[in-house]
Amino acid sequence: MGVTQKLAGNCADLTYNDLPDAVVHQTKRCIIDWLGVGLAASQQETTQILRDHILKMGGNPQAYILGSDQYVSAEQAALINGTMSHVHDFDDTHLDTVIHPSSPVIPAAAALSQWRGASGEQSILAVATGIEAALRIGMSVCPAHYDLGWHVTGTAGVFGAAVAGCKIEKHSPDKIAAAIGLAATQSSGLREFFGTMCKPYLPGHAASGGLRAALLAGMGFTSSDRALEAPRGWASVLSPESRMDVIAKDWGTTFELLRVAFKPYPSGVVTHPVIDAILQIEEDLGPDPEDVTSILLEVHPLVLELTGKKSPGTGLEGKFSIYHCVATGLIRGQVGVREFTDEAVGDPQVVRLREKVSAEISNALQPEEAIAHIHCSDTSHTVHIRHARGSVNNPLSDSELEDKFLGLVAPELGKRRAGRLLELVWDLENHDFAELLGAAAGID
Amino acid sequence: MGVTQKLAGNCADLTYNDLPDAVVHQTKRCIIDWLGVGLAASQQETTQILRDHILKMGGNPQAYILGSDQYVSAEQAALINGTMSHVHDFDDTHLDTVIHPSSPVIPAAAALSQWRGASGEQSILAVATGIEAALRIGMSVCPAHYDLGWHVTGTAGVFGAAVAGCKIEKHSPDKIAAAIGLAATQSSGLREFFGTMCKPYLPGHAASGGLRAALLAGMGFTSSDRALEAPRGWASVLSPESRMDVIAKDWGTTFELLRVAFKPYPSGVVTHPVIDAILQIEEDLGPDPEDVTSILLEVHPLVLELTGKKSPGTGLEGKFSIYHCVATGLIRGQVGVREFTDEAVGDPQVVRLREKVSAEISNALQPEEAIAHIHCSDTSHTVHIRHARGSVNNPLSDSELEDKFLGLVAPELGKRRAGRLLELVWDLENHDFAELLGAAAGID
Repeated sequence: MGVTQKLAGNCADLTYNDLPDAVVHQTKRCIIDWLGVGLAASQQETTQILRDHILKMGGNPQAYILGSDQYVSAEQAALINGTMSHVHDFDDTHLDTVIHPSSPVIPAAAALSQWRGASGEQSILAVATGIEAALRIGMSVCPAHYDLGWHVTGTAGVFGAAVAGCKIEKHSPDKIAAAIGLAATQSSGLREFFGTMCKPYLPGHAASGGLRAALLAGMGFTSSDRALEAPRGWASVLSPESRMDVIAKDWGTTFELLRVAFKPYPSGVVTHPVIDAILQIEEDLGPDPEDVTSILLEVHPLVLELTGKKSPGTGLEGKFSIYHCVATGLIRGQVGVREFTDEAVGDPQVVRLREKVSAEISNALQPEEAIAHIHCSDTSHTVHIRHARGSVNNPLSDSELEDKFLGLVAPELGKRRAGRLLELVWDLENHDFAELLGAAAGID
Repeated sequence: MGVTQKLAGNCADLTYNDLPDAVVHQTKRCIIDWLGVGLAASQQETTQILRDHILKMGGNPQAYILGSDQYVSAEQAALINGTMSHVHDFDDTHLDTVIHPSSPVIPAAAALSQWRGASGEQSILAVATGIEAALRIGMSVCPAHYDLGWHVTGTAGVFGAAVAGCKIEKHSPDKIAAAIGLAATQSSGLREFFGTMCKPYLPGHAASGGLRAALLAGMGFTSSDRALEAPRGWASVLSPESRMDVIAKDWGTTFELLRVAFKPYPSGVVTHPVIDAILQIEEDLGPDPEDVTSILLEVHPLVLELTGKKSPGTGLEGKFSIYHCVATGLIRGQVGVREFTDEAVGDPQVVRLREKVSAEISNALQPEEAIAHIHCSDTSHTVHIRHARGSVNNPLSDSELEDKFLGLVAPELGKRRAGRLLELVWDLENHDFAELLGAAAGID
């Protein structure tokens, strides 16, 4: 039996009762994080364009667009909710593969779950199984696959969405294998599109493609049963290197899902230790920005390679400027989605301060490590961050994750409704996605 | 200016009046062929499953499912009509790249054209520009891309569908470049799925993805303007080798579209010279099959590599058995879709005859060449085909193309309606896709 069939069997066999408590808990953390970053994207331009398009195409009322009572087809809900999850570049990350697993997987599970009336337990199982499948398939080809230029959140995410859909549909192994094949032939997405609307579109595309794969497989659509491992199968065509054994290894006892990390700031993870340092300085000194003489950063080489933009012009470019991250962090004492708007990036005070920021590469530092030195007219201060918040060695606590959620969602929905959403997710086994998405839409 | 922007500019600039008569004529031939093979797939299982799925999802009434008055969204019509076009493996082929260009491109143009009420001239221009773009993008990476395992009809077809959609929308070069980017990040499809329902699904997937790319680009969706040629762009990620200069070379004066070939038989092109030979023998001798002692074929090596199946069990497998092609051709005097049903393959008389067929490889033969020797109780006969019907050196005439169309469509719609469809396509500049698709659905 090949690895595609083995994975399909493993996914079919996994039950809610097989999930360790820690896995159920982590799945809920993923759902909270997904819901928060998605809801915060309701008014973004990418969301508006896609929403307009979907409403033009029309569809049967099956599932909500996140945060609204606009009922669209399950496929369309997966498409737009998957896109919304990734608009702010603020969604969760499996650091070993750089897969953002929740944005392709949860929207597929949620939309299908709402349409089909699946239980909370079944939905948790679907999300956990789908994320686990996506991560393991991603691990089988990363880093070579990602290095080649594939946006692995899309290419591996579509499998996770398909598997999650299959678990809502309670498919047999044969049908799951067919859905994996349908996912493989739809697997796409390039890193070339980072920094454009095509980036968040991709997990949406993967979510809806995976959902469709699960439904077509259920209706008898045929595929190869060696989609992943065949000589001309997915792994060999999309990656110069692969290790197919990791896909099924220790399935059901080891969960990669537990290694998914949550971002404290809506920018690339490489900026996070620096932001930690500057927020620490702000808390320690609370310096007047006009009184700052200079700020010197010591950073891992990747920081300048990925976020070395000196003079960002837009909010999106601000995410790729470590100088902006530092200046806005010190002035505002926080680094959230409001610090990456076009206005925030053009704020004259921020622009003046970022010109005083310089950075030096240090090969002695780990990626999750950074040092910041600040010099003011009459004082100097240094902060050394060894493990950035949100990294595997310093994960966000539940309460920090709740704070992130409330910071994103309360301004949109109010504190009371945002709090209610948190309660529903933490107790999801006694509720379901239909209730959760209804509450997010203001329909209680 | 890079090749993505150059191509976008070229596509934007091309007008109906720029098209040579031969290109307009060939575009109509593509539309006739597409319509015939698509309509003939109405009752196939792949079509039925996808139709059921689409009707479950629902959509605004914008365009017809081919051959029916079921109105679905433009995206959905592109999806199912693109799939139907490829179900019989009988659609047109650009032999140099092995792209089947009409099945991803025409459904996108047709659905959008019907929804938007585009004119016949604009639709012909959209199809011609879309096919030309898909073929040139395919040529820039083939054969290395195809050899790696990509199903290039999907991976390049999505660009053609996007460009066709852009021409219906009359997009500027910037928007066409954005649509090309959106197509690139959706570009997918593996040869591993040949022989399964995922194969015809792919051009449908490409058609609907390309159509969506055109619409989103029109609404302001952003993308990279170096989607094809960037260091981590489409060509470098999806192909070990590429020649980007062919994409824009002699644009507007040389048309690859003119090199698109039409299949006389619904099986792989390698079987065609052999089928020509056996049909010639049938016409010359009209032998009683029971009186045949043996049939010996001399064939190009690819014939046995791709279609060497001795004992096919299903209609689909029959397409991959040169022995079945020969036996059914001699007995029935024709090789059409009815010769590749499960029943036709299991017909005891056909089974008996195919056991008398043997084949030998000859390295002296061209792919479009074959020799057949037949031995009966009291006579022998040999036919040597040098250029198979439908090959570049022996293209189907308009009248042969019409016969193919009528053979496919008349049994479904009757001769009168089938003939009316032919008239409408030949005179498409004075009609439009809405009228054509309405007539195909029986709504005159």
